[in-house]
Order: sequence, then C-alpha cells, then structure tokens
Amino acid sequence: MAEKTEKMLLEQADQYLLPRLEDLDLPLGKRTRLHRLLYEHGPGNGTLLLLPIDHGLEHGPRDFFVNPPSRYPDYQLRLAREGGFSGIVFHIGIAQKYMRNYVGQVPLVLKLNGKTNIPSDEEALSPVEATVEDAVRLGADAVGYTLYVGSPRQDEDLIQLGEVRAECDRYGMPLVVWSYPRGRFVDGGPGRNSLYAVDYAARVASELGADCIKLNFPKFDEEKKEHYPKEYREREWTPEEMMRQVVRSAGKAMVLVSGGSKKSDEDLLEKARIALEAGAAGFLFGRNLWQRPFEDGLAITQRLKELMLRIGA
Amino acid sequence: MAEKTEKMLLEQADQYLLPRLEDLDLPLGKRTRLHRLLYEHGPGNGTLLLLPIDHGLEHGPRDFFVNPPSRYPDYQLRLAREGGFSGIVFHIGIAQKYMRNYVGQVPLVLKLNGKTNIPSDEEALSPVEATVEDAVRLGADAVGYTLYVGSPRQDEDLIQLGEVRAECDRYGMPLVVWSYPRGRFVDGGPGRNSLYAVDYAARVASELGADCIKLNFPKFDEEKKEHYPKEYREREWTPEEMMRQVVRSAGKAMVLVSGGSKKSDEDLLEKARIALEAGAAGFLFGRNLWQRPFEDGLAITQRLKELMLRIGA
Amino acid sequence: MAEKTEKMLLEQADQYLLPRLEDLDLPLGKRTRLHRLLYEHGPGNGTLLLLPIDHGLEHGPRDFFVNPPSRYPDYQLRLAREGGFSGIVFHIGIAQKYMRNYVGQVPLVLKLNGKTNIPSDEEALSPVEATVEDAVRLGADAVGYTLYVGSPRQDEDLIQLGEVRAECDRYGMPLVVWSYPRGRFVDGGPGRNSLYAVDYAARVASELGADCIKLNFPKFDEEKKEHYPKEYREREWTPEEMMRQVVRSAGKAMVLVSGGSKKSDEDLLEKARIALEAGAAGFLFGRNLWQRPFEDGLAITQRLKELMLRIGA
Amino acid sequence: MAEKTEKMLLEQADQYLLPRLEDLDLPLGKRTRLHRLLYEHGPGNGTLLLLPIDHGLEHGPRDFFVNPPSRYPDYQLRLAREGGFSGIVFHIGIAQKYMRNYVGQVPLVLKLNGKTNIPSDEEALSPVEATVEDAVRLGADAVGYTLYVGSPRQDEDLIQLGEVRAECDRYGMPLVVWSYPRGRFVDGGPGRNSLYAVDYAARVASELGADCIKLNFPKFDEEKKEHYPKEYREREWTPEEMMRQVVRSAGKAMVLVSGGSKKSDEDLLEKARIALEAGAAGFLFGRNLWQRPFEDGLAITQRLKELMLRIGA
Amino acid sequence: MAEKTEKMLLEQADQYLLPRLEDLDLPLGKRTRLHRLLYEHGPGNGTLLLLPIDHGLEHGPRDFFVNPPSRYPDYQLRLAREGGFSGIVFHIGIAQKYMRNYVGQVPLVLKLNGKTNIPSDEEALSPVEATVEDAVRLGADAVGYTLYVGSPRQDEDLIQLGEVRAECDRYGMPLVVWSYPRGRFVDGGPGRNSLYAVDYAARVASELGADCIKLNFPKFDEEKKEHYPKEYREREWTPEEMMRQVVRSAGKAMVLVSGGSKKSDEDLLEKARIALEAGAAGFLFGRNLWQRPFEDGLAITQRLKELMLRIGA
Repeated sequence: MAEKTEKMLLEQADQYLLPRLEDLDLPLGKRTRLHRLLYEHGPGNGTLLLLPIDHGLEHGPRDFFVNPPSRYPDYQLRLAREGGFSGIVFHIGIAQKYMRNYVGQVPLVLKLNGKTNIPSDEEALSPVEATVEDAVRLGADAVGYTLYVGSPRQDEDLIQLGEVRAECDRYGMPLVVWSYPRGRFVDGGPGRNSLYAVDYAARVASELGADCIKLNFPKFDEEKKEHYPKEYREREWTPEEMMRQVVRSAGKAMVLVSGGSKKSDEDLLEKARIALEAGAAGFLFGRNLWQRPFEDGLAITQRLKELMLRIGA
Repeated sequence: MAEKTEKMLLEQADQYLLPRLEDLDLPLGKRTRLHRLLYEHGPGNGTLLLLPIDHGLEHGPRDFFVNPPSRYPDYQLRLAREGGFSGIVFHIGIAQKYMRNYVGQVPLVLKLNGKTNIPSDEEALSPVEATVEDAVRLGADAVGYTLYVGSPRQDEDLIQLGEVRAECDRYGMPLVVWSYPRGRFVDGGPGRNSLYAVDYAARVASELGADCIKLNFPKFDEEKKEHYPKEYREREWTPEEMMRQVVRSAGKAMVLVSGGSKKSDEDLLEKARIALEAGAAGFLFGRNLWQRPFEDGLAITQRLKELMLRIGA
Repeated sequence: MAEKTEKMLLEQADQYLLPRLEDLDLPLGKRTRLHRLLYEHGPGNGTLLLLPIDHGLEHGPRDFFVNPPSRYPDYQLRLAREGGFSGIVFHIGIAQKYMRNYVGQVPLVLKLNGKTNIPSDEEALSPVEATVEDAVRLGADAVGYTLYVGSPRQDEDLIQLGEVRAECDRYGMPLVVWSYPRGRFVDGGPGRNSLYAVDYAARVASELGADCIKLNFPKFDEEKKEHYPKEYREREWTPEEMMRQVVRSAGKAMVLVSGGSKKSDEDLLEKARIALEAGAAGFLFGRNLWQRPFEDGLAITQRLKELMLRIGA
Repeated sequence: MAEKTEKMLLEQADQYLLPRLEDLDLPLGKRTRLHRLLYEHGPGNGTLLLLPIDHGLEHGPRDFFVNPPSRYPDYQLRLAREGGFSGIVFHIGIAQKYMRNYVGQVPLVLKLNGKTNIPSDEEALSPVEATVEDAVRLGADAVGYTLYVGSPRQDEDLIQLGEVRAECDRYGMPLVVWSYPRGRFVDGGPGRNSLYAVDYAARVASELGADCIKLNFPKFDEEKKEHYPKEYREREWTPEEMMRQVVRSAGKAMVLVSGGSKKSDEDLLEKARIALEAGAAGFLFGRNLWQRPFEDGLAITQRLKELMLRIGA
Repeated sequence: MAEKTEKMLLEQADQYLLPRLEDLDLPLGKRTRLHRLLYEHGPGNGTLLLLPIDHGLEHGPRDFFVNPPSRYPDYQLRLAREGGFSGIVFHIGIAQKYMRNYVGQVPLVLKLNGKTNIPSDEEALSPVEATVEDAVRLGADAVGYTLYVGSPRQDEDLIQLGEVRAECDRYGMPLVVWSYPRGRFVDGGPGRNSLYAVDYAARVASELGADCIKLNFPKFDEEKKEHYPKEYREREWTPEEMMRQVVRSAGKAMVLVSGGSKKSDEDLLEKARIALEAGAAGFLFGRNLWQRPFEDGLAITQRLKELMLRIGA
C-alpha cells in the first residue's frame, strides 16, 4: 500500500518534468506572455529556444571577434527571426536601440542584471540595471535575472531577486533565473558546474519563484568530489541521470540548458538530446549559434528545433 | 505575604506556559488566522503541528535522496493533508506552484527568508525574499522568519525582523520566528543548541513580537559550559527542566520544537513528550516525518498527534 | 559688570538643572505625554521613576535567575502599578502581549532599539526594531533609544537616532535617549562610565534632541585618566561634582540615572540622593528593584520615592 | 586682443570675490533668507558674522571648561543678540530647546550633520541628524553641512550632501558647507589645513552647490609640501595670497573663515583683516568669542564688526 | 549566399558607426534635446563638441593654474559661446551660479556624479550629487554620468547608473556616459586606456542605455599585453583600427573622445581626425582647449570644427 502510493506519486511527479502551460497555476499575465514564447514563436510545441546576447556586458566585445558581424545586435535579431527562435535576450540599452524592426517577429526577454567579468568572482553579485517596469514598457514577454547561488554576497542577491520576483508577480511577467553557482565557496569547493552545485541551484531558483531556470550542464568531477555531500558521492551518475536529477530539482519550473563556450555540432546536439529526454524545456544557446557564419547558425538552429519538435513534444 | 504574592505570580504565569488563544491580547486578523491553525486544522486542541519543507533552499536537494518522492512538494502536501497537519511551511516559489489543489485543506505558513548553506555561517544572515503582503495575497495563515540570534550581523537581522513584524501587525498576520543562535560568537562559544543560547533566543523572539517561536531542543554541553553564564552553570539540568526553562523564556509566545536531523521514533516521541509536558505548543518536524516512506510518515504523525491530544490538551 | 552678567547667567542656568515642564518649549503632544509621566503617575512632582525591563533582550534570561518570578513581565507590571512608577519600559513584543490589564495604570515607554550582548561590543550599534508610529498605536507616552556614543559605527547610529527624533517631533512623542559611551575607542580608552565619556554622552544626546537622557553614574578612574582630556584631569572631582557636571551638560533635557547591576540598598539610595541633589530628574532602575523579592522591591521603591519627593521637589 | 579679453575676464571675475546678493542668480526663498542674514542682522553690509555652538557634539563639554557659563546655550544666544551677530549655529536639540526667547533677534543656522571626535578620523563621515524640512519648520535662515573632502568615505558624504542640496533647492534654503579636508589620505598627505587641500575643498563645495563655504585659514607647510601638486610648489605664497587663492576657488559662493582654537586678539584680528581683504564674506568664529568673559566677547565682537564694516563694505 | 548575407550585414552596420538622429529609435524628449545639441548648436551637422569643466571637482583648482582666467566658469562659458560649442558640461553648483547670461546660447549638459581624486582609485566609485530632475529643472539638454568599468565596486556603480538611466527614459533626457575602466583589477592589469579595457567600456555603456559614450583614445600597451584576452593579442592594431574597433563596440551610441591632459595642437588634431574617420561623433575636450590663452582656445576650436564639418559630415 505504502509503496503503491509512493510509486503513484513519483509517476505523477514525473509528468511535470517538462511542465505544460496548461498544468501550471499561473496568473493571466504570465500565462499570456509564456504562451507567446511557448506556442506563438520558436518550435511552438511548448519548448523554448532563446537566443541570448548579453556577452558584450558579461565578457566584453572579445566574444564577437571570431565572427565579426555578430558584434552588431542586428545579426542576432536576424538570426532569431530567420531561425524562428522563441525569443531573444537583451539588456536594456540594446533592446531600446535595436528591437524596432523586429517587433512582433522576435519576442524580447529583458535581462535585468549583469556585470563585467573584470573584477574577481570570489564575491560575485550581479547588479540590477533595469526593472520589470522597463520590461512592461518595452513590451517584453519575460525578464531574466542572474542569481549567483552560494556567493558570499548571496544575501544581497536573494533580496534583489525577491524584489524582482515580487514585481514579476505584480505585472504578470514571467521570470527566467540564470541560476549559477559561484563565489569562493563554490569555486574553491565542488566547482560551479558540479552536479551538487547545479542541482542545488535548480532547487533554489524554484523555491524562490522562477518560472524558467537556466542551468549549466552538470558534471561529476572526480577530483573535487570530496566537496560533494555524501548523498551525491554514494552512486555513479551518467550524464542522462545528472540531467534528469537537476530537472527534477527544478520542479514545476522549466529548465533551460546553457550552451557555454563553443562546441562541436555533434557535442551540442548530443547535449541537447540528453537534456530534452531528461525533461528540459529548451535552450539558451548563444555563442554556439552566433560564433559561426550566419547560414551555419541557421543550419544548426534547424537541427536543434527538429530535436525539440521530436523529443520535446 | 511577599512570598505568597510571588508564589501566586509564578503560578499565574505558569498558566501561560502553553498560551491559549482566548487568553492572548491579539488583533482580530491574527486571532482569525491562528484560530484556523490551532482549532480548524491539525490536532485541533490549540496545539500546532506544522510540516516544514524549506530544506531545498536551506540544505539543497540532498535531503530528499533518502526518500526520492519527497523531492516533489506534492509529497509533503499529501502528507500534510492525509496526516491532518495544522499547516505546511513553504517558500514563495513552491507555494505558488503547488498549493492549488490543497486550498482549504492545508493552511499555508509562508516562509519569508532563507538562504543556502554554501557560504560560511560565521556571519549568518537570512535574507527576505518574500513579503507579508505576498502572504496576504496567497491566503497564508502565518509567516515564518529565521532570526540568527547573536550573529555579528544581528543588527541587520533585527531591523529586517522589525520590518516584517510591523507588516504582520499591519495585516493581522501571525509571525512565527525560527529563533536560532548562530554565528562565530555562538559556534565558537556556547554552541548553537546550548541551553544558554536557546534560552536567550526564546526570549529575544518574544521581546521582538513573535507569536510562535521555533526552537531547537536545548542541551547542556559539559565541554562548552565555560562559555555559559554562571547562572546556568550553578545547577544541574534535566532535559525536562531545560525545556521548561526555554518555554518560560518564550512567555506568551507559543514554542514550537524543531526536529532537526532524523532520529529514531522513540527518541522523537520522547522529545515530543518532554516538550509538550513543558508547555510547548507543538512541533515543526520535517525530515523526521518525510525522510521515510509515506505510510511510515503517516504512522508517526498519528503517534505525535495522539501525544499532542493527550498532553497538550 | 562682566562678572555680574556671568554670575547672573550661571544662576539662571542652574534653575534648569532639573528642567520643569512649564519652563520647556515643547509642542502640545510632548507636553501632554510628559505631563502624564511627570505629574499623573509616579512621584507626581515633576520627577520620573521608570522601571525598565529590556534585560531579556540585552542580557538574556540570566538576569531573571536570582528572582524567578521576574521572568514574567507581569511581575514588573505589578511592581510598577503597586509601587506607583511613572512608567514601564518594554520592547514591542512584551508591550503588545502584557500591557492590556495595566492600561491607565502604568504608562508605557516603548523601547525602539536593542540587541543581544553575544557579539562583541567593539563596533556597537543597536538596531531599531519598532517605530514611533508603533508607540503611537500602542498609546505609549514616550519612546526609548539607545545611542552608543563614540562607537566606530556612530554615523549609522546618529542617522538612525535622527530619524527617530524626527518622527518624535512629528507625533509629539517624548524621546528618552539611553546615552551610552561604547565601542573600542571608548572601552580601550577612557572607559564607558568615565566622567569624560558620560559627560560627553550627556551633551551629545541633548544636542540631538533628547527630552530625557539616561546616563550611568560617572566615575573618575585614576588608572585610565591619561585617556581623559586635560580639562578633566586638571582638578579633583567628588561624586557630587561629577553628577552635577553631567546634569549641566544635559542642559534642558532631564537626566535619568541608571542603576546598573544590583547594589546594596544604602549604596543605591546614596547614589540616588547625590543624583537628585545634582539636579537629576529621576531614575531608570531595573535590576536593583526587581532582582529581589516583590515586597522588598516595593519597599525600596517607597524609599526612593520619598527621596524624590523630598529632594526633587 | 586675447590678452585684453583675459584681463577683462579676470577683472570681471574679481568683482565676485565677495559676491553681492544682487549679483547672484538665486531663487526667491534663498534670496529672502540670505537677505535677513546679510542685511537685516549682523554688520548689515552684506558680510556675515555667525556664532557657531556645535562644539558640544564635535568636541564634547570640555570646550566649555575654560569659561563655565558658555556651557549654557543661553550664553551664546545672549552674546549673539547683544553683539549683533548675523546668526547663530545650532544642532536641532539645542535650537528646539533654547531659541524661543531670541526669535526675531538672532537668526538660526541649523547644522544638519555632526559627530563626536571619539572614533578615529581616518575614514571621517559626518552623519545627518536633521533635515532641511526641520530647518523650515523651525524658521531657520540657512542650514549647515560638514563635508569631509577627500575622506575614503567621500562617496557616501557626497551623496548625502547632494540630497541636502536638493532639499535646499526645493525649499529655497541657503546652504552653508563646512568644507574640511579630512581622512587618512589628507592627514597622512598634505595636511588638513594645507593650501592645496583647503583650496580643493573650496572648489568642491562650490561645484556641488554651496551658497557659503566655511574654510580654515590655509597654510603652506614646508615639511609636507612634497604631498602638494607641483602647481602649488612652484611659487612662494604669502598668507594674503593663499587666502585670495581659496576665495577665488570658491567662486560665487561666499567664504566664511573659521576661527579654530583660541588665539590672541591681535592674531585673530590680523587673520580677519587678511581674509576680508582677500574677499571673504565673513566669519564663523566660536571658541575665540565665547571662550572668554562675556564682556570680552562683546568687545572683540565689536572690533571684528568694525573691521567688517570697514573692509567688507 | 551566407557570405553575402554577412557582408550585407556588416555594411549595413557600418552605416551606424556615426549614428544619425533620424535613424535612431528615440522618444520625443530625447530626440528634441539631442537635436538641439547636434543641429542647433556646435558644428550643426550631427556631430558634437562639448566643453567639460568638471576639473575643479575631479582634480582640484590646480588645473587652472596654467591659465588663471580659466578658474572662473565664465571663461569657459564665453569660450563655449564664442567658439560655438554644442554644449558645456557643469556640475550643479556651477550650472546654477553661472549659466544665467548664456541661456539659449550655450546648452547645458549637467554632470550628475563626480568625486575628488584624493582617495585611492583602487575601488573607484563616483557618487551621484544631482538628479535628472535637477537637469530638467535647469533646462539641461543632457546629463553626464561617470561609470568606472571593472571597479571592485561596479555593482554599486551599475545600480546607480541604472537608476539614472531609468530617470532619463522617464523624462526624455539624453544620457552621456563617461565610460572609464578603473580600479585595481584594471590598473594592475591591462591598464585604463588599453584597447581591451576601452573597447569593453564602450560596449558596457551601450548595453546599459547610454546615448553618447565618452571614451579615452585606446592604446595597445606592449608591456601589459599579457593582461589582454588573446583575441586582442592575436593581431596588430593601428590607431585607426583601434578607434574603429571601439566605435563599433559602442554600436548605436555616439562616441565622444576625451582629450585628457594637454597635448600639442598637431597631436590633438591628428587624434581628432582619426576619431572622426573611425566614426566618432565628436569630442569632450577640456584642458586642451582652456589651458591656453582665450584666443588660442578659439583658434584650435575653429580648427576642430572645420575637421568635424569636413569628416563628420
């Protein structure tokens, strides 16, 4: 009897690994805006393919050197429109200056915080430079917030996130949290992409009200595993199992997987397949899509979307 | 004559070791909401059995490994409903995503602050991520706040608590304070669960306006007793006396005892018995109830409630 | 002629050593509330006898061990009522939970800030946990604020006090400042009860808008006198002269003398006599009154009041 | 031609070394209030003689020992009235308690910030304890603000000053800035009264919106001159030239010279003469006027005013 | 096909190296005010020549020694009027005291933040002393903000900038960002004028909403190049290429080049030529124009304007 109940519960829960809009308890504003991202743009089957272009702030113009046209946001906007993305991610200055000609064609996700990578990351904190009200004013369909999970300054970060979350609730604006383990206790410990840290980050964002959570692909680092709690060390993990673990920890929030630095197409698609099969809702791939010639970017986009239509359906 | 007066005063005071709603001087909103928790749900005799599920933020998903279904908040909601708890404790993200189907069946205690355990606890501070207004909006019957008593950053903490307390007074929202000694002066001194520190924490929360106070079971640590004030060292303490001491220090605020990490059933029930006999109003047991199969969780819940109905009446 | 003017000025000034309500330039709200404390309760002759009970926050429950009934605020309320005090000092949590039955009989002085003594006092700051508006809401007749004069964090403290002072002006609420030299520059220098530091504290509170100033009895510490400015070292000081000095520095603010830790009755009364003769307006004696059997507390209260009626008149 | 233009410009500029109210572009409120200080009180010829009495906060009561009646603000008020000062400078507590009988006779300059001198000055910051609105409420004719130029915490200071300045613009309240070089980069470098630092301080206050600037008399310290920029080291400076330099740097803001610790009458008058001839608008002399018998204070006041009427006209 | 698209994109993007007002997507208020600066004053062909005079705050009066009349803001105002500048840059105190006679003739750019150079620049932050609302009140046509890119306190800086940016959007006020790499990670690394740092600074300001970006002329410092990312080290850079790189990184924000300390005329004009040819919109030259006799200043101004009319057209 007890076991039956639990089995039933687990099965029921696994229905939500990829949460469906109709199953979520969302206010009308969030529902309307997410509907646009999930069904009116991009793959259109309830998955999300977002094109981020915040690298100019986070890394500097250096990320554009390998493909010079990418330094102009028009490049990514055109890629987003021609490739049929769910939306594009911009900071306010870029959004205000470049979106005009893409209205109705490329939904905007306004990134609210960000910073340069010049100072040390030991006490990382990403300051808010724009507001949810800005996002409303600009017609955005979601906002993005980077949370540095485990940073020594996490208290400031969590308060700041809480304020953004409250404004999102007030305006019915979907909240995408970049949930990134960071800071000296992480980097000097389990590592920012470790299964333990990414899994924790997934749950933290879910507990604090994210609608979507951007995560890095988790890995199990043998050399640092003494920094993992024993619960993670007691067993072996395949990439599939690690991805499924973090998707489960995100609960009813949708998981978006980061691309990180540029990889081979096969690596990228393999990663994408694992993520989708584990229940991820989609991707926030940037450099992997625009650090290459435009037509190549379109081509890999198509392969990704096919995968999303096949597995994410 | 003098002694008679004092004896009378002490006896009168001991009537309040378990404060009764009708004896408290509360505004209508607090009274209405506490009535729901104390008499319309749970044991129903003026005691409180709350199920906390904030571990995903405070400890990470690792706490769910021993009982995988517990990682889905539906598990605890079902346990709270089937076990007949007074209420469930959630952070805002979980509350907003999971409560819908339990409305009217499981009262919500919205936890307003919380943090990861990745950074050091030396200067502990738990940042506020949700507001009393959120709690009102979500139909919650109480809010929870973690106060790190004695932390080097206690000034920020006390100001933050003061703001939450004022909002609770404004909206008639009951305030449950997790009153936890913490920080380098505590951990490098008497210890966070020491009688001295827990007793101090009980009084601090009461002085600052808590309606209920969550405390750890106090202990007398021989090895650290040189860090206790002499008043505590001058005598011997049984567990019963220590619990009664902290209940007295909480005054007209209700004491809820924490479970902490998982224990044997007999230990847990023995602890519960001591607490109830000392005047505690109930329990905030989490891992001890859901880090086990569902039916076992229900079973131990029933034993606890029987105890509460018998002793707490 | 010049000397005559100055003599006249000094004499005139000495009229104010114990300021009289009718001589003060106060707005109606402050005048009404102070009238209650000065003439409608307590000795009733323009002096003040306040019973503070903030020790549970400042020191912890240990202060109640020597007289167990004192741990219940009812004890002090009863003492205040039966002893006929001018008012009682509580933090908000205690005020809200215990005052009900004493309304109209014991005026409330709401203490707005306070802290535990667990962290080091090197950079002392006492955070605000309640507001002047709370005091208005609760029908209090004054508020209390602890200022740590000379603390390295005095800038935060002075800003916080300034905000409380402005609210007091706005609502006509009398402001009692606990003006305590503190922090590493004080404790590692002249000492917190040194004549120099207490005298400075008296003037600071007066400059910043206190209506009443709580001071410790000043002393001249031979061992630390090299930390005193030369103006203080150039002469000998009797206790009477030291008290008169600090009363003069408080100007038109009324001086209330602290009791500190428990003393013999004769010491206490002798101290009280010196203070009253020097122009102090009264006392904020806590532990000296309630760390003893109830009837003893009443008895010493009567002796104090007799002194206040005789000398303070 | 070019030289002619520049000569003309310099000459024109030198007209403003002592700015005249009619030549300044001021809103009506500032004009009305400054008119009171400049023409309806004090010397009455557009110069300013202010009597500051903030020493009780900045230095403590020790400054009053040499002339005991000076510890009562009535002493300075009487001196201000009988000596015919332009105004008196008080903190809010003193202003509220002592001004009543001098209304219409002694204008008030409300000092908004101040601190004790107990903590180290290495990171000096003077916190705001009263507001421009307080000044309006009390009928003050100007406010005073101490800026610690060059302090490591100058960013907080400048923001605080900016807020005060904005309120002054809002209410038409004249702003007097005590512009004092301070902090470890100053005291460990050129020195707080060095020509370089005082000159810089004059310009900073002018750039940020001061109407009047209180400066210390600049000096050229041979021992520290390696900390001066080369522009200052390249030439010799007489006291007259140094004073003229800082008056020029203050631009259209009026320069008020501080007295500092007590000096001989001849030194004081000589300093005053140099300042007036260089274009200073007047003085903020405190200890030099009231650390002496009343009639002596009146006498030196008369000599100062004669000088102001003769040179400042 | 792919290559064709990219070529087209790059060419299209290069149209914006010098953004034209009619091509920018600006709200009416910003458009009106920028029109005044770009077409109604200065060269009048869509380029900008601004005269900054914030040196009194940033460096102190020492900058005026070489040309004494320059210490009076009238000097620069006259130069701006007679030389026909697009506008003048002042802090609020100077603007309020000196602009009156130049209304309608010299547009005002109100600089909102600034600081002295006395404290160390290791953790540089420039505090806000005036508001966008002040700028509106004073009839300014733009505001200026200094951002210290890469400073350890960048989080505070970015939040502060975000607030200014939001107010600019609210009031339609153009925002000029002084985007300066600074702080110990910059100065101890690539250097504040390094190509890498200036290029990053250009993009950061553009991402965060600047309408114009003031940059220093970038340089490639062989000795520090190991601190540059490899993307910058992999090739050789001419001054022309470096300037074009940073103009591209600024995107649709207009680049204004700083003059820095005084140079020879030929150096200055050569620098100006390179900048204009690379697509810069103009200059913020201060010391190079007013640290010389007035007629010389006018003469070099004319040479600059001729260049701007010729190349910037």
